[in-house]
Amino acid sequence: MADQEVQNGGAEKATAEAKGKTTLDLIVELAVEAPKAEDAVQFYKAVFGAVEIERATYPKRKADQERPLLLSALLQFGGNKVMVNDRLEDDFKAPEPGSKHQNLGLRLVSEQDVEAVIEKAVAAGAVAEGGVAEDRVLPGKHLGKVRDPFGIVWTIVGNTTKTFAAENDTAAVPEGRILLL
Amino acid sequence: MADQEVQNGGAEKATAEAKGKTTLDLIVELAVEAPKAEDAVQFYKAVFGAVEIERATYPKRKADQERPLLLSALLQFGGNKVMVNDRLEDDFKAPEPGSKHQNLGLRLVSEQDVEAVIEKAVAAGAVAEGGVAEDRVLPGKHLGKVRDPFGIVWTIVGNTTKTFAAENDTAAVPEGRILLL
Repeated sequence: MADQEVQNGGAEKATAEAKGKTTLDLIVELAVEAPKAEDAVQFYKAVFGAVEIERATYPKRKADQERPLLLSALLQFGGNKVMVNDRLEDDFKAPEPGSKHQNLGLRLVSEQDVEAVIEKAVAAGAVAEGGVAEDRVLPGKHLGKVRDPFGIVWTIVGNTTKTFAAENDTAAVPEGRILLL
Repeated sequence: MADQEVQNGGAEKATAEAKGKTTLDLIVELAVEAPKAEDAVQFYKAVFGAVEIERATYPKRKADQERPLLLSALLQFGGNKVMVNDRLEDDFKAPEPGSKHQNLGLRLVSEQDVEAVIEKAVAAGAVAEGGVAEDRVLPGKHLGKVRDPFGIVWTIVGNTTKTFAAENDTAAVPEGRILLL
């Protein structure tokens, strides 16, 4: 087992170096019941010492809405990144009362081809969930989801060489224009 | 709002500097149905390019058990840390079929006093879940849980000035001796 691990680790490092995979990044997504994401951001800054790096908001949908909803607020917790969203759709199932379920997700961001990463994961036993679409948070990036053999769902974010017809992207593009602040 | 954010950010940074809070660390916990955590670690290394930093195992419980269960395997995903565990107890509820629920947790590790962080969170609207106990993964550290006002449960890991009677720690200490490899 020890030998196998060393071999795996060595091969993986060599592959990573060959691919120039220097930008692998894991982002924790916290989906908060809209419109409380802004309050959540303030809580994480004040209580846990998180630092806000950047944010993107949804356009205002109603004239009487006091503030735009958060598509994504990126917070830094030490060396780690957390993205806080206002949950508009059923991206994450709401926790049941008394349940320990959380509205958490994991985004794995790299410069790799998103289809290639998904194919590699599927070959290793993961199941692709839905297709690949444009990322509404990171312009120019594309994403897809896989459920790994251990039940964890990962959002894979990366590059793509494919072009997508507009109708294929509907699910991933929010209504209206995204305002990047 | 912009002014408020700048003020909050400034005040928080000053506080962080005053406290020497340089070790804030966020660790994502992935709870895997035992005994598959080892397979999960190999999957994350081979497919996602994660690098294993360290591991701790439970002692073998059965003579016929081929390998010890993973109490904690710490993986590095880029600059981020992920801890993979064999789930023995009902720490995390198993996902229901077809549900998007995940066995994810967040550990916030710092050099701060764990009771102080929990009190601060509770004062800001969080609810403490259970008491403070010794951390079975990080020797010398203590931990407690809070559910924030937005439904996210955080495991707060830090220091403590209190001494705990052995009977108070039962829930957090696995059976047998912990082997740190």
